[in-house]
Amino acid sequence: MRSIKPTLPKGTRDFNPLVMAKRNHIVSVIEGAFELNGFQQIETPAMENLTTLTGKYGNEGDQLLFKVLNSGDFLLKADRGSLEDEDSARFGRSITEKGLHYDLTVPLARFVVMNRNDIHFPFKRYQIQPVWRADRPQKGRYREFYQCDADIIGSDSLVNEIELLRLFDSIFRDLSLDVEIQINNRKILEGLAIHYEVGGRFTELTIILDKLDKVGIKGVCEELERNDFPTQMIEMFSKDVASGTLEGNKALDIIEEWFNFANIQVGQKGVQEVRELMSAAASDKVKLKLLLARGLDYYTGCIFEIKSMETEFGSLGSGGRYDDLTSLFGLDGVSGVGISFGLDRIYDVMTELDRFPETVDDNADILLVGFDDQCILKSLDYADTIRKAGIKCEVYPDKVKFKKSMKYSDQRGFKYVGIIGEEELKLDVIALKDMSTGDQEELAVSKVIDRLKG
Amino acid sequence: MRSIKPTLPKGTRDFNPLVMAKRNHIVSVIEGAFELNGFQQIETPAMENLTTLTGKYGNEGDQLLFKVLNSGDFLLKADRGSLEDEDSARFGRSITEKGLHYDLTVPLARFVVMNRNDIHFPFKRYQIQPVWRADRPQKGRYREFYQCDADIIGSDSLVNEIELLRLFDSIFRDLSLDVEIQINNRKILEGLAIHYEVGGRFTELTIILDKLDKVGIKGVCEELERNDFPTQMIEMFSKDVASGTLEGNKALDIIEEWFNFANIQVGQKGVQEVRELMSAAASDKVKLKLLLARGLDYYTGCIFEIKSMETEFGSLGSGGRYDDLTSLFGLDGVSGVGISFGLDRIYDVMTELDRFPETVDDNADILLVGFDDQCILKSLDYADTIRKAGIKCEVYPDKVKFKKSMKYSDQRGFKYVGIIGEEELKLDVIALKDMSTGDQEELAVSKVIDRLKG
Repeated sequence: MRSIKPTLPKGTRDFNPLVMAKRNHIVSVIEGAFELNGFQQIETPAMENLTTLTGKYGNEGDQLLFKVLNSGDFLLKADRGSLEDEDSARFGRSITEKGLHYDLTVPLARFVVMNRNDIHFPFKRYQIQPVWRADRPQKGRYREFYQCDADIIGSDSLVNEIELLRLFDSIFRDLSLDVEIQINNRKILEGLAIHYEVGGRFTELTIILDKLDKVGIKGVCEELERNDFPTQMIEMFSKDVASGTLEGNKALDIIEEWFNFANIQVGQKGVQEVRELMSAAASDKVKLKLLLARGLDYYTGCIFEIKSMETEFGSLGSGGRYDDLTSLFGLDGVSGVGISFGLDRIYDVMTELDRFPETVDDNADILLVGFDDQCILKSLDYADTIRKAGIKCEVYPDKVKFKKSMKYSDQRGFKYVGIIGEEELKLDVIALKDMSTGDQEELAVSKVIDRLKG
Repeated sequence: MRSIKPTLPKGTRDFNPLVMAKRNHIVSVIEGAFELNGFQQIETPAMENLTTLTGKYGNEGDQLLFKVLNSGDFLLKADRGSLEDEDSARFGRSITEKGLHYDLTVPLARFVVMNRNDIHFPFKRYQIQPVWRADRPQKGRYREFYQCDADIIGSDSLVNEIELLRLFDSIFRDLSLDVEIQINNRKILEGLAIHYEVGGRFTELTIILDKLDKVGIKGVCEELERNDFPTQMIEMFSKDVASGTLEGNKALDIIEEWFNFANIQVGQKGVQEVRELMSAAASDKVKLKLLLARGLDYYTGCIFEIKSMETEFGSLGSGGRYDDLTSLFGLDGVSGVGISFGLDRIYDVMTELDRFPETVDDNADILLVGFDDQCILKSLDYADTIRKAGIKCEVYPDKVKFKKSMKYSDQRGFKYVGIIGEEELKLDVIALKDMSTGDQEELAVSKVIDRLKG
C-alpha cells in the first residue's frame, strides 16, 4: 500500500488529551445540571432516514444535510433520467436513503413518536451528541460539532420555559461566562407580520431576519426591500430597531401599542408569554430582542439565544418552543420546548477568555519505572495495588536510561515517579521521587499510597 | 408537510433512559479503569477521508465502509464512464470523498502521524466513540455501535501486552462477567504458513481462519480445500485443532515441535512472546487459541479475543499488536498495541445474564408538585435550593389534579414527592410525602434536604 500524507475532512477536528479534558469539564457542568434538574439521558443514532430529516430545517437546512451513499450496488436504484437532466438533487435522492442528523431535536421528535407508549409525560430528556452540517467552515463554525440538549415534551406550561431559562443562567454562571439570554416569541413576530399585512409570508420573513447576525440590520433591510416587504415595516426596523427603541424589557409596551396587538390575538399572546417569562426568570441577563427569529422552521413560541457579553462569538446556545414537531411524524397535540448548548463555541470562548480551572488537566499521579524486566514486572503488581486505592498510576513499559524516563515524566507532568531497581526489588520498596521538590525516599507500596493520598 | 410513520435505519437503535443508565454503568467501569491506568482520552471525527480509511481493513472491510456523498453539485466530478460500465464502485469513488470510521485504530494511527511532534511517547490513549459498518444486521451485530479502545503507541515492549491483558481481566471482573481471554500470535500463524509452504498466501489464510466463529472448523477446512491449501495442513486443522490438542497453554511445546519452529524464526518468536505473556498475565482466564486470526489486515504480533464463558455471544472485546500501521501514513518505526471493548455486546450479555447493579437506574430523588401558578413558581425556588445540595429535583410543570401527578411520580419512581399548596405557601413549608411508606410531613426546605441526604 502506498503511504499517504493524512489529512482531516474540512470542518472536522481531532481532540487531543488536553482539549478533551477541557471539553469534559464543560460537559460535566452541563450534564450535572441536567441530571440535578431531573432530565434523563437518551441517545439516537448518528444516521437517520432522510425521510425523517428532510423538510424540517427549511430549504437551506436540507441542503446542508450530509447524505450517506446506499450500500452495495447503489446504481441499481439510480434515477438515470435525473442524470441526463443534470439534476444532482434528484439523482442524489435515488442513491441515498440515510443522512447524518442535523440537530438533536428532530431525532427527539421521532423518538417520542416511536416510543409514545413507553414514555411518561412530561418527558424531560437530555442528549449530548455530535451533529453534522455541510456548512462553509469558519471561525467557530464546524461541520461536526457537539450539541447538549435538554427538552421537555408533552407540557405546554410556561413553567418549562422558566425552568429552562434558569438552567441557561445557572450553567453559564457555573462555567464563569458572562452571557446575555436574548429572548423573543415567534407569536410576536407573527403578530408583527399580520400588522404589516404580510402574515402569509411569515416563514420567508423569519429566514431573512435570522441573517441579522451575519449581515447586520442594514443587510436585513436591504434583503427585505429586494423581496418587496412593506416599506413601513422596513423603516421601522432600520430606524427603531436599530436605535434600540424596540429592544430590552421595556419595549413590550411599545410593541403592543405600535403593532396594534389589542386587535391581533397571536401578537398579544406572544407579548404576554414574554412578559410572564421575564418576570419569573428574575435575571438581569434576560433581554427581549425583537428581531430574534431563529432559522429553524419548527419554532412556534418563545425562542432563546445566548450571546457572550465578553467576546464576539455568535451564539453559545439557543432554544425555543415547538408545538407541532411530532405532528410531522403523525402524533398531534404534543408540545415541546428545549434548549441547546453549543459545546464547541463554549470551548472556543472559554479558551479565548482563559476560563478553565487550573486543575482541568490534572490527570497524572505517579509513574513507575523499572530498571530491568523483573523490576518492570514487579512494577505492574505495585501498579495494581496503587490503582485499587483510586490513584492514577502508569508503568513505563521500556527498560530505559533514567534520564529518558524522567524526560517523559516531565513532559506528562507526573507529580511522583516511583523507581524500582535491583536494590528496591530485594527490599520490596519503591524509591519515591517527589517531582516538585526532587526529594527521594524508599517506601513500601502501602506508604506510597498514604503519601499520594495525603 | 405530509406526516410519515417514522422508522430507524436498519441496524441502528435508540437508547432510552433505562438503557442509557445501563450503558453508562459499563462505560464508567471501563473508563475508570482506563484513567487509573494512565490512558488519556482523545476523540477523532466520525467522518474521515476515504483515503485514510480504505486499504486498511481488507477488501471485505472496504466494502463495509459507509460513504458520505460529496456536498453541493457532486455530479460535476462524477465519472460518467464508470456508469456506462455499470461499475458502481468506481462511480461511488467519484462522488464520495469521506466515510464514517470503521474502527478507532486507523483514526488513531492517522492522529499519531499528524500530531507526532506534540505527542510524548509511549502514547497511552483511550477513545470511546461509535463506529459504523455496513454489515448485515443480526443478533449482537449492529451497523452503528460503540468501541472503547485503549492503545499504547511507540513502545514494542511486551510489558504493554501484559498490562492490556490485565486490564481486560480486571474490567470484566468489575463487570461481573466470566470470560475467556483467547490469545494467539500472528507470528505463530506466519510460521505455520511457512512450515506448510504457503507463506506467500498468509493474508488469504488469516481471512479464511477468521471465519471460524461463523462457519465452524468444518467450514474453514472446506474453504481451505476449495482454495487449494495443502492437504496436510487442512488435516492437521480438522483433526488436531478440532480435538483440542493444539489449544490451551500446554500446546506451545507441541506447536514448536510439530511445525519445526527451531528452523522458522518468526514462528519461534511468536511462541516465545505468547509464552512470556501467559506467564506474566498470571490469569487462568488466558488461553492460547491456535486458529485465532483476527480479520483486520494490520495485526502483526499478539492478538486477543474475549469470549463469554456463560453465554454464546461472539466476541466481547479484542485487540492486538500492529507494527506498521503508522507507516501507511508515512511514519515508520512506531509500533502499537491495543484492546477494544464492544460496549453493545457487553450490554447484551449483561442484560441476558441480569448482571447490572440494582441501583443502576436510581436517578429520581424528589418531585415537587404545586397546586397553582404561585405554588409552582415557589417550587422552582425550592428546587434550586434542593439541587444546590446535590439532590436531583424535578418540578411538575402543570397545575394538575393530585392523582395525575402521583401517577407520574409512580411511573418515574420518585422516592419523595414534595407538595406545595396554598397552606404550605403561607407557612413556607413543603408537604413531604415518602412514597415507600406513604407518610407525609410538613417541613421547611432545609429539613427536606436533611431528610433526603440522611
